[in-house]
Amino acid sequence: MSEMFVGIDLGGTNIKIGLFDSELKLICKTSVATKADMGPEVVIDKMAQTVEKLLADAGLFRHDVVAVGIGTPGPAKYSEGVIIKSTNMPKFKNVPICRMLNEKLGAPIVFDNDANVACWGEYAVGAGKGVKDMVFFTLGTGIGGGIISNGELVHGCAENAAELGHMIIYPDGRECNCGQRGCVEAYASADSTARRAREAVEAPPKAGMIRPGVAGAESSLKKVLDEKGQITSKDVYEHLAAGDKLAKEIADGTAKALAITCINMLHTTEPKRIVFAGGMIAAGDILLNRIKDYFNEYIWTLKKEPVEICFATLGEDAGIIGAAALAQHTKNGD
Amino acid sequence: MSEMFVGIDLGGTNIKIGLFDSELKLICKTSVATKADMGPEVVIDKMAQTVEKLLADAGLFRHDVVAVGIGTPGPAKYSEGVIIKSTNMPKFKNVPICRMLNEKLGAPIVFDNDANVACWGEYAVGAGKGVKDMVFFTLGTGIGGGIISNGELVHGCAENAAELGHMIIYPDGRECNCGQRGCVEAYASADSTARRAREAVEAPPKAGMIRPGVAGAESSLKKVLDEKGQITSKDVYEHLAAGDKLAKEIADGTAKALAITCINMLHTTEPKRIVFAGGMIAAGDILLNRIKDYFNEYIWTLKKEPVEICFATLGEDAGIIGAAALAQHTKNGD
Repeated sequence: MSEMFVGIDLGGTNIKIGLFDSELKLICKTSVATKADMGPEVVIDKMAQTVEKLLADAGLFRHDVVAVGIGTPGPAKYSEGVIIKSTNMPKFKNVPICRMLNEKLGAPIVFDNDANVACWGEYAVGAGKGVKDMVFFTLGTGIGGGIISNGELVHGCAENAAELGHMIIYPDGRECNCGQRGCVEAYASADSTARRAREAVEAPPKAGMIRPGVAGAESSLKKVLDEKGQITSKDVYEHLAAGDKLAKEIADGTAKALAITCINMLHTTEPKRIVFAGGMIAAGDILLNRIKDYFNEYIWTLKKEPVEICFATLGEDAGIIGAAALAQHTKNGD
Repeated sequence: MSEMFVGIDLGGTNIKIGLFDSELKLICKTSVATKADMGPEVVIDKMAQTVEKLLADAGLFRHDVVAVGIGTPGPAKYSEGVIIKSTNMPKFKNVPICRMLNEKLGAPIVFDNDANVACWGEYAVGAGKGVKDMVFFTLGTGIGGGIISNGELVHGCAENAAELGHMIIYPDGRECNCGQRGCVEAYASADSTARRAREAVEAPPKAGMIRPGVAGAESSLKKVLDEKGQITSKDVYEHLAAGDKLAKEIADGTAKALAITCINMLHTTEPKRIVFAGGMIAAGDILLNRIKDYFNEYIWTLKKEPVEICFATLGEDAGIIGAAALAQHTKNGD
């Protein structure tokens, strides 16, 4: 009998599933359309069938699976294995996904939110390997987070810990979708970076916390907006690399906001390593080095800090790897 | 044989020692002058003798002591039981306090920083009782902190976690003693509250993050400064209670900074309860309610937060109770 772990990344559009051995080496993986409008019964049935098919393709059996991990966005009662509701899957209301999948597959099911799962993946076999205290940020539409303290995920009193994008760094600053003002997400997510660039190109300079000192009309990003009707964070970093001053100012605002947040995390759970993931890290060193520069400029002088700031290494597979790794960890901790 | 725990609060001026039963009920306590200038050998010897005397007074013996807890300010390698150096005890350099005290008393010694120890005391038998996730702030000369996540203190990768006073809430804001700018400590500690009041009384209104909109000359605090040569945080809250507008503005700045920090902690480790301790909580409900008001004003609207914000209940004894409680917890976890 082999000791295999299954990792499932349940998204609104696709379900990714991977089969891993006990060293967390990927044996095989697949992706199927979620078709969430078919309802939870059908989706969970397909999930189980896809796992069975992966096992069959690998010449393995259901009893070879030690545990299954699932990551999905909330809100959910993760410890109870229930999806409360889902923005991308409107028919999923109070779905006991763990019990339903366990009935089909037999193996124990471990369940957590997608950011925690990706965080755990990086911790177990990616950029966080070898440390016991780590903080994780995903830079996408919003900013997601995960915290590992002394080798365990921090879940908090109501399983809403590590909503790190909503730490307030500029009280009374920019409006955030969450209803707060001045969240780091309102400055430094990929979407907010793009939005600040667009505002800077469109609007004349005005008073505010992070404002363009460079006229938008002179920026090469103006042409992007005129031609494409939008500016993305990718555009910002491309034009920064090409020397555009406004792009630099916008990107600096992003890096500074992230650096301040890193400093605040250092003074909170004191990670040894801070890992950034998500689409925006494609910007590369031009982003990473600027975060480090601001970190070193704004951090206290009391002692030299041991924290390492780096990018995630697992890419798109973080979700399935993390889910399998978390299943293994939880199983071992039983 | 009884099962007793000793709690020691080692400060630069006094050593407080308490003897507790297994229910953490105080049997007896005492306080002796530290006389740190006599050096670590003498101080630790006196510590042991004082424990022996407390035991004798209570009709108990050395073998009745299950474990001893010590809290002291850092920097120290707590897990190794070594005080690296001490601002208030200059002769304490690389002192293996745990080994030295263990040789004299026989019992295992548990060692942590003073803020963590007080935090644990409130968690075990004070304002944090009954929750598993708690955050603790001490409002004194500076702002100290402690974090309990899932029933354990968060220590961080180099035992410097929970330096919560140095979370940056106003980037590029007021200078802090730590070398950063805009730390919550630079606004909301007892000392900073007093300092902001004095600056507001002395200086004409000027641009800045939190600035007096009320002329200092019209404040009743001006008379305090003229007569006493200083303003304390106690003065601020007394004059706030008496209706002084400037005192209100200063106190509002303090409460807002603390509320923003509470929100940030909620989005980090998600405590069920946030406990404030330290001299400044003597201000009472006029402080606590204002923190809650700002918290409710600035927190997101995504969901109703379950966090309770309250004051510590153990007062001056938090250090010895916490040290004994931590000794018991660590011993039980062995």
